[in-house]
Amino acid sequence: MYEGPVQDLVEELGRLPGVGPKSAQRLAFHLLTVDSADAERLAASILAVKERVRFCVRCCNVSEFDECRVCRDPRRDPRVLCVVEEPRDVVALERTGEFRGRYHVLGGAISPIDGVGPDDLNIKPLLARLADEDVAEVVLATNPNVEGEATASYLGRLLKTLGVRVSRIASGLPVGGDLEYADEVTLGRAFAGRREV
Amino acid sequence: MYEGPVQDLVEELGRLPGVGPKSAQRLAFHLLTVDSADAERLAASILAVKERVRFCVRCCNVSEFDECRVCRDPRRDPRVLCVVEEPRDVVALERTGEFRGRYHVLGGAISPIDGVGPDDLNIKPLLARLADEDVAEVVLATNPNVEGEATASYLGRLLKTLGVRVSRIASGLPVGGDLEYADEVTLGRAFAGRREV
Repeated sequence: MYEGPVQDLVEELGRLPGVGPKSAQRLAFHLLTVDSADAERLAASILAVKERVRFCVRCCNVSEFDECRVCRDPRRDPRVLCVVEEPRDVVALERTGEFRGRYHVLGGAISPIDGVGPDDLNIKPLLARLADEDVAEVVLATNPNVEGEATASYLGRLLKTLGVRVSRIASGLPVGGDLEYADEVTLGRAFAGRREV
Repeated sequence: MYEGPVQDLVEELGRLPGVGPKSAQRLAFHLLTVDSADAERLAASILAVKERVRFCVRCCNVSEFDECRVCRDPRRDPRVLCVVEEPRDVVALERTGEFRGRYHVLGGAISPIDGVGPDDLNIKPLLARLADEDVAEVVLATNPNVEGEATASYLGRLLKTLGVRVSRIASGLPVGGDLEYADEVTLGRAFAGRREV
């Protein structure tokens, strides 16, 4: 046990996900030795994120303003909507440079084990957007795992009744991958999703 | 890239040791979702550690006051001094409950590769203590690695000239360990350090 402030910091850092007691200790001593200015910048950015970050009123992504950067951008195609689980998925897709439409962030995936049902996700705002905006296609880009697939199939059924085109991102072998080491499900998907060359 | 405050926080967290870009992102989104009170407590404890923590004037350990908790404690034996590299080593030794003397924290170990020489460590304050205080034995508890051993042998030679008894913590097999899997150096040390039963 350390004295007062050091112990407090170790405990606070230990609450962060993936930070065990040893890491918390190492981080605390790192912060003890860095310049005060660096530590203050970190503390200020933690506070800033709580004060200044909110959710985009349109797509539920994290945003500094009422609408996020993508929704504010007039060059983005409002007719294609990409549905993702988390804000970090938006960043991952933006990095590909492949998509010029807008996003909708669900804030998670359907997971009965964790007690997350459709009502806990931003599905109502999505339906409201589809009623208001002139959307031609919805791309379901939830993760290709159990929860993400369940969410995609739930949304697929729901949205098709609204007469909008619904698509799902492709599953298959990762680029640079190796047939030999691929699991059966991935390989099966890659086979089923084959395209004429 | 995220918007303003989120990106700032990801970058600040990414500066911490052992926190890569992905971890920084995960931590930032965790902080975005926790209660404001939790985030404020973390920010406050970072600032508190910079404002309120200093080094014990006697043993150079981290401390909330002029003297650290161990040095303030009148029940500790001032005649035995345990020399360690870092404040976290004090915590590790305190957890054993074996040692009732006081500590001296070097603030590192001699490491020519990292440009750390004897003058960069708290060795002058140690010599001052040995001149002022009535110390009978110094236990060298630096780490049993190259830097720690070099530091211990340097201090051993230096302190013996002062007529104080100097000892080194034992190296050997860890309790619960297995002869078969021990490296040769450790096993050699365990053999050389054998004690009559």
